[in-house]
Amino acid sequence: SFSRGMQTVTLIPGDGIGPEISTAVMKIFEAAKAPIRWEERNVTAIKGPGGRWMIPPDAKESMDRSKIGLKGPLKTPIAAGHPSMNLLLRKTFDLYANVRPCVSIEGYKTPYTDVNLVTIRENTEGEYSGIEHVIVDGVVQSIKLITENASRRIAEYAFEYARNNQRSSVTAVHKANIMRMSDGLFLRKCREVAENYKDVKFTEMYLDTVCLNMIHQAASPNSLLSVVQMVQDPTQFDVLVMPNLYGDILSDLCAGLIGGLGVTPSGNIGANGVAIFESVHGTAPDIAGLDLANPTALLLSAVMMLRHMGLHDYGNKIQTACFDTIRDKKVLTKDLGGNSKCSEFTADICRRVQDLD
Amino acid sequence: SFSRGMQTVTLIPGDGIGPEISTAVMKIFEAAKAPIRWEERNVTAIKGPGGRWMIPPDAKESMDRSKIGLKGPLKTPIAAGHPSMNLLLRKTFDLYANVRPCVSIEGYKTPYTDVNLVTIRENTEGEYSGIEHVIVDGVVQSIKLITENASRRIAEYAFEYARNNQRSSVTAVHKANIMRMSDGLFLRKCREVAENYKDVKFTEMYLDTVCLNMIHQAASPNSLLSVVQMVQDPTQFDVLVMPNLYGDILSDLCAGLIGGLGVTPSGNIGANGVAIFESVHGTAPDIAGLDLANPTALLLSAVMMLRHMGLHDYGNKIQTACFDTIRDKKVLTKDLGGNSKCSEFTADICRRVQDLD
Ligand SMILES: CC(C)[C@H](C(=O)O)[C@@H](O)C(=O)O
Ligand SMILES: CC(C)[C@H](C(=O)O)[C@@H](O)C(=O)O
Repeated sequence: SFSRGMQTVTLIPGDGIGPEISTAVMKIFEAAKAPIRWEERNVTAIKGPGGRWMIPPDAKESMDRSKIGLKGPLKTPIAAGHPSMNLLLRKTFDLYANVRPCVSIEGYKTPYTDVNLVTIRENTEGEYSGIEHVIVDGVVQSIKLITENASRRIAEYAFEYARNNQRSSVTAVHKANIMRMSDGLFLRKCREVAENYKDVKFTEMYLDTVCLNMIHQAASPNSLLSVVQMVQDPTQFDVLVMPNLYGDILSDLCAGLIGGLGVTPSGNIGANGVAIFESVHGTAPDIAGLDLANPTALLLSAVMMLRHMGLHDYGNKIQTACFDTIRDKKVLTKDLGGNSKCSEFTADICRRVQDLD
Repeated sequence: SFSRGMQTVTLIPGDGIGPEISTAVMKIFEAAKAPIRWEERNVTAIKGPGGRWMIPPDAKESMDRSKIGLKGPLKTPIAAGHPSMNLLLRKTFDLYANVRPCVSIEGYKTPYTDVNLVTIRENTEGEYSGIEHVIVDGVVQSIKLITENASRRIAEYAFEYARNNQRSSVTAVHKANIMRMSDGLFLRKCREVAENYKDVKFTEMYLDTVCLNMIHQAASPNSLLSVVQMVQDPTQFDVLVMPNLYGDILSDLCAGLIGGLGVTPSGNIGANGVAIFESVHGTAPDIAGLDLANPTALLLSAVMMLRHMGLHDYGNKIQTACFDTIRDKKVLTKDLGGNSKCSEFTADICRRVQDLD
């Protein structure tokens, strides 16, 4: 039958520009003859037994079956007590690794030309534990929770990722000079795991130093205070692994280096192949429905997804077509510096994908 | 007598390149005839009664008297349990506001030309509380402590700073979407204080969004996903106020925008005029004693100090001379792109300071 060899993916189009960029991705997948059957689901948090927030059963059921999701942007809930759907999805499927490759895109000008790194963020605990208390009136504490298991797991993920993706180094990003016990534990696990991956270089760096080096040295390699610091060249950043909040910050920062969230893919990876790939930009309600949105971030997330599913050829073909369209500069959406509609940009990629056959 | 009208400043030269950049600053102050008497003190943490770490009594005594300190870099303690002297100084004198103006320097090329902002970091609590526990084996918690008083105090400082320095807006940087209670409290205090400063615009932004906008939009104003985000123009960043750790990260990031820690001044401000100004770069042991260091960060910190002391004319004169030397490009230290020694760079500034008279 037509569906032989087809794999199912749960598609969560999302809000705002979500539906139109999802349509763009589906069109490009069709042009590429990618063997994917989409199962569309909407996710809006509902209250389950005991008043717990949960994702709708039909979305959960689809993900449980397909194991793989592709997700557009979801609007941030405004109601107090209402959870972020992004966080609820990560939690529901124990998607413990947030992976964001940041690679400079040829033809899309930013001041940074040779960025080629991946941030790997622990996605389940840390500052995102959700545990907070009022101690006395006017005194609040939030608990950052770091566990040995989650730290080892993410460190192992990072080293496996490096090895499987021909990347030569892993940098653990931390503030163990301040949070000696929690970040200390995280760092210790990274060091231990590093022992098992002698083929991958391991380094450690303070979060603030990473931020500084990311911007400063990428821009002006001569403007260093000392030779010691010179060693910390940002083109040396390769795979970066870190606790939850630091990953939130650093992944956005790195996205900025290559042109922002509109062109940056993201994957949330769990155990046993379960994963949700998503664009991490906003819903852009002001341009929703106007055929002006840029589908690149969702498309490149879908490319990550294809590779995750072992469909490398399809992934490579689509990525090549997308980058060719951007490099060519003739058919670009507004945010990429052009005047074309989302549908025109999409059609240009489709044409190139077909030509690649 | 000669010392009539002189004010005393406690000088902590620090380690590595600290002494030579301190000498540079003293020479330039002398050339400017700045009415400052230096009282040199070394700080190395010692163990006081009850095993508490404290700064040496003669340094404490000098600071208690002078109220004003200027500090070079201190080497990071390696011994476990040994405190960071930087943190101990902030704590000892309750220096609750860490202030870092980041202004693009003419003639010193970075990809960002119009940066002109100030980060104001809460300097006493938050993630730096030092409270950590092992819950059970393999599970550690760090406590982030946010209080109403410290939040109100830093918010008030930020708005006062904006008003007194002709700055038009204050942005509170937070992750209250995640840490709803702690960052929520911080944000609420900022909002309340904002009510009393109707002449200063108040905005709020997520930390990750700030990081992204800092780099991305400064670099490529057209590359935005949507018009809504377009409003978040980085040249709109003016005064930014935030909890401790976010300030650690963001102040380094902003320093990167203007060329790094070698050119970025910093002040730690307490109540009743007490303050310590410091360069926040490292001790650069590899070039220490070789007359190669760049004294700019410490000098500009000393300029902030002069203004804090009400000695604006001296501060302006020295800053003008320093920026003229950099803009002129003839006598620059290595890290600034030149071939001159620290002493030559210093002499050039001295000459210009004298010419300004
Ligand atoms: C939507 C929000 C809860 C989320 C986060 O803070 O993790 C986002 O910023 C991200 O990086 O995916
Ligand atoms: C030296 C270190 C403890 C300090 C910090 O983390 O606050 C430094 O990074 C800073 O920004 O002043």
